[in-house]
Amino acid sequence: MSDSSINPNEVDIVIAAINSDLTPFLNEWRPIFSPFHLIIVKDPDMDGELHVPEGFNVDVFTKSDINQMVGSSHSILFSGYSCRYFGYLVSRKKYIISIDDDCVPAKDNNGHIVDLVAQHIANLKAPATPFFFNTLYDPYRKGADFVRGYPFSLRSGVTCALSCGLWLNLADYDAPTQALKPEQRNSRYVDAVMTVPVRSLMPVSGINIAFDREVVGPALFPALRLSAEGKIRWETVEDIWSGMCVKVICDHLGIGVKTGIPYVWRKERGDAIESLKKEWEGVKLMEEVVPFFQSVRLPRSAVTAEDCVVDMAKAVKEQLGKVDPMFIRAGDAMADWVKLWKSVGSSTPGV
Amino acid sequence: MSDSSINPNEVDIVIAAINSDLTPFLNEWRPIFSPFHLIIVKDPDMDGELHVPEGFNVDVFTKSDINQMVGSSHSILFSGYSCRYFGYLVSRKKYIISIDDDCVPAKDNNGHIVDLVAQHIANLKAPATPFFFNTLYDPYRKGADFVRGYPFSLRSGVTCALSCGLWLNLADYDAPTQALKPEQRNSRYVDAVMTVPVRSLMPVSGINIAFDREVVGPALFPALRLSAEGKIRWETVEDIWSGMCVKVICDHLGIGVKTGIPYVWRKERGDAIESLKKEWEGVKLMEEVVPFFQSVRLPRSAVTAEDCVVDMAKAVKEQLGKVDPMFIRAGDAMADWVKLWKSVGSSTPGV
Repeated sequence: MSDSSINPNEVDIVIAAINSDLTPFLNEWRPIFSPFHLIIVKDPDMDGELHVPEGFNVDVFTKSDINQMVGSSHSILFSGYSCRYFGYLVSRKKYIISIDDDCVPAKDNNGHIVDLVAQHIANLKAPATPFFFNTLYDPYRKGADFVRGYPFSLRSGVTCALSCGLWLNLADYDAPTQALKPEQRNSRYVDAVMTVPVRSLMPVSGINIAFDREVVGPALFPALRLSAEGKIRWETVEDIWSGMCVKVICDHLGIGVKTGIPYVWRKERGDAIESLKKEWEGVKLMEEVVPFFQSVRLPRSAVTAEDCVVDMAKAVKEQLGKVDPMFIRAGDAMADWVKLWKSVGSSTPGV
Repeated sequence: MSDSSINPNEVDIVIAAINSDLTPFLNEWRPIFSPFHLIIVKDPDMDGELHVPEGFNVDVFTKSDINQMVGSSHSILFSGYSCRYFGYLVSRKKYIISIDDDCVPAKDNNGHIVDLVAQHIANLKAPATPFFFNTLYDPYRKGADFVRGYPFSLRSGVTCALSCGLWLNLADYDAPTQALKPEQRNSRYVDAVMTVPVRSLMPVSGINIAFDREVVGPALFPALRLSAEGKIRWETVEDIWSGMCVKVICDHLGIGVKTGIPYVWRKERGDAIESLKKEWEGVKLMEEVVPFFQSVRLPRSAVTAEDCVVDMAKAVKEQLGKVDPMFIRAGDAMADWVKLWKSVGSSTPGV
């Protein structure tokens, strides 16, 4: 099932365990995930025992691992969906793939199971083209190319650092949209992947992503936490916030971000009406956040993702701090994340 | 076959007749085109008689019509693929759809014939979202929406003025790509349409497009003509040049451009190897042209497409004129086009 051309030593699959029984989830993914090393991080808020089926090359991390390595009094909270970021911290592989535990493999238009790992790694290994839009989508894909008029000087592309996958069935909508359209399901499999153009922002979802840890790992962090953050995706914005940071950083560094295939099949979870009062907070914040990220410029001295995050954290605190103290905390968490990344990330052997 | 919700009084279909016998072409399109008014412009370089089958509501324009209305000593040449622009000039409808005469209807993934008119008009009537990228493509399409994190203040979108369709079978590649990959055919029907983000340039192809004539008509013109321009698409750049102008103008005016469905099925034509020596000229020009369009800024005083073209023409002559006299001629043609648009376009009854 899995693509044998991918070196398993290059890939970690990180799973944030929000559900205590990962057995059905992992059994569905077995044909695709089994050649690869899994990092499972148990939500520190979860009391029960975690069930992981046999037959995987897996390391499981729990609250005590987190406390031991990071300390419990940190500005960064690894609870709920944010526990995945602990997995990013302890990985030592070049690529990380991260999938929510309510997603199972999707099928393409021909009824074939999508090889999520192969597609994400293909997206990351092929160049990105952020500086000119190719109307026939990914020009490096088999059967495709650059269309007439595409400048030859831009056809070699740039490094791709982030691959954002999509969702069939239950798409990643916010609580108001879910509440307004409870029956809406995404059934359109769009067989394309493309580079998101430079200076164009997008809502990066943490449900189904892959990235080059060595290039942008420090720029994926759990920094913006809503006061009423919950255990349902639409009650969180940590990935949206981090996604805007990482896109601005990629633009600054001249590297690319892709969106499109691979899809996952996302199952039902949560009550949108119940979530509405929490989610509105995130919805309102976006109106302040987007103009900031559209206008923020990083200094030329910032030449690595670490540099960029440190400078971005300062700008967040200076420019957004006065809007809401939540942004002060986010800026602090970003600065602390870089320190953590440098200490835990490089001084310890990892997994 | 055709969508009855579209008012035929709003649509002109413009065909540049490069082939003298349009019978097979129009018979293939009959189920889709028959409710609409057709403007056929015969390539003034074509000597033979033009064959148009019966049963269409059609006006045919020839060299003598062009000379009578525009004069023959003009900076604008309506020969070859550029004859279509004469059709744009004489149309009085809100929307124009323009298809090359070597394209026939495509089929979608379910084997259904694509209703090109319905899809282009749907693209133009639904808003565009150039200021934030929606990862699930067109958010207004049935079954789709804005994904979590998309700012609510941007969800009403802006006017869409240009819809760029795509090509199955023979895609719109340049001569070098065609020559390198003579067997390459595009068989991937990507069931999506999206807004091209603001400040992102793209290669607009004239093969299969639709636009709101009232909004951006003055910005679609035949201005850049290669010295060895031929009768094969990959020997021309007039649409690429005009496409970059219209995209910059749309960005300036805060209106949108879409790309994606509808597809056409494009048939074979031309010898890529023969074209190579002509096309390289266009390929080399792009390296000068793209940085110009990426950096050019229009003044605030430019509030209509006409204003924008006049200002763009000045900038082209000032900044690119020293690179190649071809750009001086292009700038002159753009300025003259606006004069023509105002005189021929508004003072005469049109068709």
